[in-house]
Amino acid sequence: MKAPIRVSVTGAAGNIGYSLLWNVASGNCFGADQPIILQLLEITPALEKLKGTIMELQDSAFPLVHDIIGTDDADKAFGDADAVFLVGSRPRTKDMNRSDLFVANGPIFVGQGKSIGASARSTVRVITVGNPCNTNCLIARANAKNLPNSAFSAMTRLDQNRAVAQVAGKLGVPPGAVQDVFIWGNHSDTMCPDLQLATANGERVAGRLDQDWVRGEFRQTVATRGKAIIVARGSSSAASAAAAAVDHMRDWWQGTNGRVVSMAIPSEGWYGVPEGLVYSFPVRVDAAGRIQVVEGLEIDDYIRAGIDENIAALEDEKSNITNLL
Amino acid sequence: MKAPIRVSVTGAAGNIGYSLLWNVASGNCFGADQPIILQLLEITPALEKLKGTIMELQDSAFPLVHDIIGTDDADKAFGDADAVFLVGSRPRTKDMNRSDLFVANGPIFVGQGKSIGASARSTVRVITVGNPCNTNCLIARANAKNLPNSAFSAMTRLDQNRAVAQVAGKLGVPPGAVQDVFIWGNHSDTMCPDLQLATANGERVAGRLDQDWVRGEFRQTVATRGKAIIVARGSSSAASAAAAAVDHMRDWWQGTNGRVVSMAIPSEGWYGVPEGLVYSFPVRVDAAGRIQVVEGLEIDDYIRAGIDENIAALEDEKSNITNLL
Repeated sequence: MKAPIRVSVTGAAGNIGYSLLWNVASGNCFGADQPIILQLLEITPALEKLKGTIMELQDSAFPLVHDIIGTDDADKAFGDADAVFLVGSRPRTKDMNRSDLFVANGPIFVGQGKSIGASARSTVRVITVGNPCNTNCLIARANAKNLPNSAFSAMTRLDQNRAVAQVAGKLGVPPGAVQDVFIWGNHSDTMCPDLQLATANGERVAGRLDQDWVRGEFRQTVATRGKAIIVARGSSSAASAAAAAVDHMRDWWQGTNGRVVSMAIPSEGWYGVPEGLVYSFPVRVDAAGRIQVVEGLEIDDYIRAGIDENIAALEDEKSNITNLL
Repeated sequence: MKAPIRVSVTGAAGNIGYSLLWNVASGNCFGADQPIILQLLEITPALEKLKGTIMELQDSAFPLVHDIIGTDDADKAFGDADAVFLVGSRPRTKDMNRSDLFVANGPIFVGQGKSIGASARSTVRVITVGNPCNTNCLIARANAKNLPNSAFSAMTRLDQNRAVAQVAGKLGVPPGAVQDVFIWGNHSDTMCPDLQLATANGERVAGRLDQDWVRGEFRQTVATRGKAIIVARGSSSAASAAAAAVDHMRDWWQGTNGRVVSMAIPSEGWYGVPEGLVYSFPVRVDAAGRIQVVEGLEIDDYIRAGIDENIAALEDEKSNITNLL
C-alpha cells in the first residue's frame, strides 16, 4: 500500500469544504489506492463546527483516510502538506465595495502563503478556490518565496465545467462527450470561454454551434451562472465548486492524458499576459504533474479582446494589494 | 458502454440529497462504467431550490450523468426506476411527540410505496433513509403490493459506520482495517451493535476490546452520535448519512464479496424477529444482488436482550400506523 499523503483544506467547516472533504476522502481525487491524512484549517470561532464535520468524516469510515487533524494553526494545517485546497475566504458582504474585498482577503492569503512556504513539502500543489481566487493565489504565491511558481494555481474549472454543460445541452450529448473546452483569464464574470479546441464525440464543435449563441447567450450564461444558482438555491454554489476543485486537483495529480483543461497559473508571458499574473490558460498536465500551457493557438480578434479584458481586470485587482506582494 | 440506469432520489433538494447526488453522480455507487439518469422528487414548494441543485449537477459535467429530471410527480420520479433512495421525510419538530412523527410520515410513504409499485421496474431496489426509516420502509413495502420483499430495505449503515469508526479509533487502526461489524434492529438509539464477527486487519476484535467499553461507552457513543453531531455542527448529519446510503446501495448493487454488513429488511422470522418487520440483520450480498441474512450465529443473553428490545420498539412504531399497511 502507498504511504499516505497529507491533504490540507482551509475553510473546512464551510459549505464548499463540506462537499469537498467527502469527495476527496472517497478516493475521487488522489486515486482509489492513495491513503490520505486530512489536515483541516478553520478560524477559531468555527472550530466547534469543524469538530462536527470531523466526527461525520470519522463516521463515514473511509478506508483511505488514515488520520484527520482539525486546527486553527496554519503551520500545523500545512505541515508537510502534499496538496492544499485554499477554500476559505472572506465573502463580499453588502456594505463592501469590490476593492474592500481584496483588502479583506489579502492578509489571509499573506499568512497562508508564508505558512505554506514554511511548512508544506517543497513539492506541494496548491489550488486556490476562495474568491477572488486568482488574486488570492497571487498573494499566497508571492508570500511563499521559497516555492516555485509551479506550486500554485487558482480554479477556473467551475467556469469550464459550466461551459461544458452548456455546450453538451446545446448539442444534446452527455457532458462526458465534450472535451477540450477551456477558459481564459479571471474566475469572474469577465472570464472568456474558448471553444476553438472543443470536441463532442471527437468532432470539433466550432462549426456546429451558432456564433451568435457562442458569443451571446452561451458566454452570458456561463458568466452569470453563479448568480443564477444563488437565486434558485438561496445559497451559493458549493457542491459544484467542490466537484470542480476535485477535477482540477485530480488532473494535476494524475495527468490529463492529452486532454486540455483550464487552470489559472502564474503567467510566464504566454499570450501577452504579464509575467506573474495568475491567469487561466488552456493547459495539459503530463504524468509527472507538470502543467504545460497549450502554446501557439491562433487568437482571433474576439478572443484577443477577451484575453485583454481579463488582463486589465486582474491588473486592476492587483493594484489593490501591491503592498502585500 | 452500458445502458443508463434510472436512479430516483426523494427529498433531492434537502441536505442529505445535496451530498448524496454528487456521490452517486461521480460513479461511487453504481460503478465508474455505469451511466445514470437521475430522477429527482421534491415537494412543490422546494421545486425552485431543486432547480438550483439540478443546475449545479449540470455544472459538474459528470460524464456518467446522461439526464436529470426534477419533478413533484412521484409517478414520474419513480418511472422505470432501477434504484430508489427514499431520503425525504417529515422531521420531528418541537411540538410533535414521537407518535405524531409516524402519523406525519405515514401518508408520504403510503403514496411513494404505491407509486413505486405502479411505476418502477419490477427489479427495483429501494433504500429508505428518511426517518423513522425502518417503519417508513414497512409502510412503503406494504403499499407496493406487486413488488417482492427483496425490493425494500432501510438504512442502518450509518450506525454500522459509526461503530466501525469507534472500534478503529479504539484499536488505533484505519477504519478500512475493520470489517464485519453489524447492527441489529432499528435505526434509533435502541440499535444494537454486534462485534462477534468483527475483525481488524483480519483478526477477531472481540478478545481485544474491554467488554465494559463495548457494552457501555461504545454502544452509548454510537447510539447518541446523531445528537452529538447536531450539538457540534448546529445541523444534523448529512454527508455521513449520504455516504452511508451510498455504501448500502453500492454493496447491494455490486455485492459484498463475502463481507458482512447491516441492512434493515423485511424479516422472514430470522432470530425470532416477527415476519414482515423491517429489521436490521447481518447480511451478505451475492454478485447477483441477493441479500442473504447470516444465519446460525450464537446469540448470548446480552445480544438477545438487544434484539428483543428492538423488536419491541419496532412493534410499538408499527402500532401507530397499522391502518396504513
